[in-house]
Amino acid sequence: MNDHLNVAVIGAGYWGPNLARNFRASADWNLVAICDLDVERARRVAEGVGGVPVMSDLAAVLADPLVDAVAIATPARTHHAIVLAALAAGKHVMVEKPLADTHERGDEMVRAAAARGLVLMADHTYCYTPAVLKMRELIAEGALGDILFVDSVRINLGLIQPDVDVFWDLAPHDLSIMDFVLPGGLAVTSVSAHGSDPLRTGKSCVGYLAMPLESGAMAHVHVNWLSPTKIRQMVIAGTRRTLVWDDLNPQQRLSVYDRGVDIEAVSKGSTADTRAANVSYRLGDTWSPALPEREALGGVVAEFASAVHERRPARTSGAAGLRVLSVLGAAQASLLAGGAPQVVTAGVAAQEVAA
Amino acid sequence: MNDHLNVAVIGAGYWGPNLARNFRASADWNLVAICDLDVERARRVAEGVGGVPVMSDLAAVLADPLVDAVAIATPARTHHAIVLAALAAGKHVMVEKPLADTHERGDEMVRAAAARGLVLMADHTYCYTPAVLKMRELIAEGALGDILFVDSVRINLGLIQPDVDVFWDLAPHDLSIMDFVLPGGLAVTSVSAHGSDPLRTGKSCVGYLAMPLESGAMAHVHVNWLSPTKIRQMVIAGTRRTLVWDDLNPQQRLSVYDRGVDIEAVSKGSTADTRAANVSYRLGDTWSPALPEREALGGVVAEFASAVHERRPARTSGAAGLRVLSVLGAAQASLLAGGAPQVVTAGVAAQEVAA
Amino acid sequence: MNDHLNVAVIGAGYWGPNLARNFRASADWNLVAICDLDVERARRVAEGVGGVPVMSDLAAVLADPLVDAVAIATPARTHHAIVLAALAAGKHVMVEKPLADTHERGDEMVRAAAARGLVLMADHTYCYTPAVLKMRELIAEGALGDILFVDSVRINLGLIQPDVDVFWDLAPHDLSIMDFVLPGGLAVTSVSAHGSDPLRTGKSCVGYLAMPLESGAMAHVHVNWLSPTKIRQMVIAGTRRTLVWDDLNPQQRLSVYDRGVDIEAVSKGSTADTRAANVSYRLGDTWSPALPEREALGGVVAEFASAVHERRPARTSGAAGLRVLSVLGAAQASLLAGGAPQVVTAGVAAQEVAA
Amino acid sequence: MNDHLNVAVIGAGYWGPNLARNFRASADWNLVAICDLDVERARRVAEGVGGVPVMSDLAAVLADPLVDAVAIATPARTHHAIVLAALAAGKHVMVEKPLADTHERGDEMVRAAAARGLVLMADHTYCYTPAVLKMRELIAEGALGDILFVDSVRINLGLIQPDVDVFWDLAPHDLSIMDFVLPGGLAVTSVSAHGSDPLRTGKSCVGYLAMPLESGAMAHVHVNWLSPTKIRQMVIAGTRRTLVWDDLNPQQRLSVYDRGVDIEAVSKGSTADTRAANVSYRLGDTWSPALPEREALGGVVAEFASAVHERRPARTSGAAGLRVLSVLGAAQASLLAGGAPQVVTAGVAAQEVAA
Repeated sequence: MNDHLNVAVIGAGYWGPNLARNFRASADWNLVAICDLDVERARRVAEGVGGVPVMSDLAAVLADPLVDAVAIATPARTHHAIVLAALAAGKHVMVEKPLADTHERGDEMVRAAAARGLVLMADHTYCYTPAVLKMRELIAEGALGDILFVDSVRINLGLIQPDVDVFWDLAPHDLSIMDFVLPGGLAVTSVSAHGSDPLRTGKSCVGYLAMPLESGAMAHVHVNWLSPTKIRQMVIAGTRRTLVWDDLNPQQRLSVYDRGVDIEAVSKGSTADTRAANVSYRLGDTWSPALPEREALGGVVAEFASAVHERRPARTSGAAGLRVLSVLGAAQASLLAGGAPQVVTAGVAAQEVAA
Repeated sequence: MNDHLNVAVIGAGYWGPNLARNFRASADWNLVAICDLDVERARRVAEGVGGVPVMSDLAAVLADPLVDAVAIATPARTHHAIVLAALAAGKHVMVEKPLADTHERGDEMVRAAAARGLVLMADHTYCYTPAVLKMRELIAEGALGDILFVDSVRINLGLIQPDVDVFWDLAPHDLSIMDFVLPGGLAVTSVSAHGSDPLRTGKSCVGYLAMPLESGAMAHVHVNWLSPTKIRQMVIAGTRRTLVWDDLNPQQRLSVYDRGVDIEAVSKGSTADTRAANVSYRLGDTWSPALPEREALGGVVAEFASAVHERRPARTSGAAGLRVLSVLGAAQASLLAGGAPQVVTAGVAAQEVAA
Repeated sequence: MNDHLNVAVIGAGYWGPNLARNFRASADWNLVAICDLDVERARRVAEGVGGVPVMSDLAAVLADPLVDAVAIATPARTHHAIVLAALAAGKHVMVEKPLADTHERGDEMVRAAAARGLVLMADHTYCYTPAVLKMRELIAEGALGDILFVDSVRINLGLIQPDVDVFWDLAPHDLSIMDFVLPGGLAVTSVSAHGSDPLRTGKSCVGYLAMPLESGAMAHVHVNWLSPTKIRQMVIAGTRRTLVWDDLNPQQRLSVYDRGVDIEAVSKGSTADTRAANVSYRLGDTWSPALPEREALGGVVAEFASAVHERRPARTSGAAGLRVLSVLGAAQASLLAGGAPQVVTAGVAAQEVAA
Repeated sequence: MNDHLNVAVIGAGYWGPNLARNFRASADWNLVAICDLDVERARRVAEGVGGVPVMSDLAAVLADPLVDAVAIATPARTHHAIVLAALAAGKHVMVEKPLADTHERGDEMVRAAAARGLVLMADHTYCYTPAVLKMRELIAEGALGDILFVDSVRINLGLIQPDVDVFWDLAPHDLSIMDFVLPGGLAVTSVSAHGSDPLRTGKSCVGYLAMPLESGAMAHVHVNWLSPTKIRQMVIAGTRRTLVWDDLNPQQRLSVYDRGVDIEAVSKGSTADTRAANVSYRLGDTWSPALPEREALGGVVAEFASAVHERRPARTSGAAGLRVLSVLGAAQASLLAGGAPQVVTAGVAAQEVAA
């Protein structure tokens, strides 16, 4: 027997085929089943990866003692029930973003995993792209200095989802990336959400999130389903350098600007006025690091295996997914309150461990 | 005697030379004086346009019965006093943006001009660029349909101003343009302002304004002094077409996208759900109108002359400047209230006329 | 029995899987075999499309009376032998670009197909992209007026091929597109080729082709394996409008500029001088037509089927492939002659028909 | 008496005002006269710089012993006579590009200057831009390694000149920059020129120059008056790095790519085949150096002063101007020969010195 882990993919819709393909290609995993209520759909996914057993009964998958882990790619509203069942059956779990459809349910899932010493991983795929990994590395090593602001724009002519608004559809990407790369994670003090539904679809199609961070910096997200142009850009400005990630520019995805405003250290007792008088501008070089071409989902399944083997939280853990839910929940409350800022409570009460 | 109007330029700082040059080049105006407390500075401006009388005493300028009008390019905090004095002396007035440093003072200025039947014009220069004039024309003729959202970004490594924050420094541009091009002007119901001062300069250097419009659309502005990249872009999305103005792309400043989301007309009693089911996507052509190369300020001084001759409000009238002040004032209140939305009261109580 | 045609794919290397997938997905074709000397390689391609018989013996494929046509994706130097054998066996043939490795061999292939009344189609895939189809349509309907110049740039850090130089590797794309979209096809009078091999690989890695057209316009191609930046751009300038195809800009692949230089019609006997005096400049709008997203190779296999059914030459016929070979041959001669221009003889002597 | 030099500007047309302004602003020069046959035109230039004596008689200017130097901005066909007269009068001379209208005349001018120990400087303005100065510096310090190819594109909707073709109008820029930045200067072995006059204006409006360099690399220039899009781009590829200068991208004018093709050193007796087998690809970072914003012409007049003071050739000397003329002359011959390559003879026979 080798040290391969056995995994079943639950859900054969949009994302399931990608999961199946990457688990199949991984040296860490045996893909042992594709499970979907729609057996025909599951069969097509199974054929696409050269043949895998197909099941429609989730209980049977979870009852199989050979299955070490499940990867869940079903609609968000079903995550809570499936994940709790899988954890109860002693399976490690990876789950599609968002972790759950409410913060409360997500919290229960994170607690359940911790109580049983199982890995609960959020599939925040973007975090495993070469660009985002590089961003995390640059920030961690101090290349940007202290963070001044984060501005993320994710807009294009998008599918108007039947069940969720543009915040729940798109912002989990921006929020999970911020959580992954910022030094203290997604440490938001409050959220103001401004949404608009000019076509009267019954939900926001244009949305803005303003989120003061605990560090004093501001994070902001613009998500939009009605833009004829497509932009996927995040700016992370620091005291030393500023990073711009333009995901649609394959020839220069990441640019690091050695440009900025310097405030000279001034003697104690300095006032805002004397500070303003000590401003200078730095106009240095721009640098664009080479990035490998690599499929992010390969990194996701490798990290899932490592977390299981090393009995540690995944880099994008359930707690990370929960922090995203905290912000989305506060955003929802802000929307209801006409855009008034809402305090975000600490993401996770439960201790996240894997014994 | 011809029908030239005589104008004096008050203030020989950053903007004064541009005013002087354009009045000098205009067929409508005689430039009769440059006035500045710093006579040497005034003299340099005067020389730059081939010689004009220089004065340091504002009262003397205003006392001169040959002077028909004054153009004021002094700091915003001085506008109120100078404009009221000029109006009292019977002069038509053009004044730099912002109209005043508070809405209350601006309102007093607009009332004073109306009471005396004099033109009070806001020098919203951007409104006279070929691109913005074309935007106004396209929207007026219905090319965009109903407006869905307006998103404006005006960011770069900007001079941190000693006396005003980034909202008062940059947002007047975005707001005055919106006022100029939108069918109902800048009809904002409330403003949420989110500012950040991560360098502790004593004022916001990064700012966001979310402004629901009376029509139900959302307008949003991002202004920023700390961005290493420079962006000057406004998107105005409509039900029929969407317009993108990229002021830094001289080869294609204006793009009109025949792309968008269509919601089919549904029978009475339709719910949000049935509406969502009737969504379709339109992916049509893009069109970029040719624009002449022309200095905007030439159009400003021509419009000032026309308004005086025709005894009508200028296209960028004092009332327009006042609407901008209303929003800036509400933004300031929102900042103080931690980002809570603030209602914007109708821009102008005073009737604006020129008998 | 239906009217599906039976096709075998010969060659399971780089391009074979794409051919197999598109024949499989086509409503016009039955994919009946994948043939490659390397059976294992053929098997992988066959599995990728859900299972197809695999063969290593070309003769057996050609001997099968149920096979109507073959699609050949083997190295260029093998085309001549395989195509002649296939034609001799009465099969219709589609063949990868370039048609052959010399003009002489290509000419023999075209004659053989004509003699037997069989379709010989060049797989000039680019010609079936939505952008190139639109270019052809625009030019055909006169939107550009008379053609003034064609300038094509196809450069990036490319694989240095072991057997061919950069002209034979890349220029067939540019030449076949020009042949497809220009009113008179690729009607080149002479070719000057300038190549450079600065890394001493034994073949040109940087290349330029200057080709006066019969119409008096100039066509020019820049191909390059050593450029760190990637450009895929073709400009076709006309008396009325100019078209720019930027294949790497998915948001605006095609732009049509209503800009140009107008020479006023002058009376008979005008000289160059008087003509120059009548120059004016037109600075009109830019227009970017919407293009569907569609895989070009789907159009290729559909056209192949139509040509067979209708017993007519394909839109990218063997004769088109031969015109490309004429230019490549002249370019090779020019290179040997140190860049001296070489006359291009009429592409095809043989009559191309399908009885 | 100070060590200022006295200069007169000859020619008050397009370029004269810029020269006058920069000489006036320079700490090295006294601008003592503007000379033009059209006195009114000269007077306008003089007024634009705050007043300078105006003259219409060139002989009088040259006869004035206080005049140390003249800067000539008259049409190219007049350079020869004026420069020889100025040199005969003992004046140092700076002259607009191109140096002369034929290589023979240019050669006579260079010889005359050398014979009298006077500075003859070519006003190759582009060479003094921050971007080109940086390019020269990077290449000189070996950052690019050996040069592999140079490709320059200078196209837009340009004024069709009455007296010269597109080669003589635009290519002097590209050629003088290559001469300035390449290690061995513009060391061209032969020139093939391909021109096209599709509007029948009597001269080439579209042009290509292919120029093998002595080093074995290829230099190529595309100049064009009929392109609706504007491009000003030069690529200089080296064995170590490649530099791209995009003059129309103010935010990133210069990019240095650490990308390329490496050929491993192979043992003696290696053939082209074994070389090809040792190819590898390097995909490193991109770097964009910060560049100051500075007017190039300020550097031109400073260099002219330094050359005069230090009695040395200017960095863009008459000899440099002559090398440009050599290439233009050969290009003209190639055009007449239908594009056949023409040998370029060594640029300068005369020894260039300033005693």
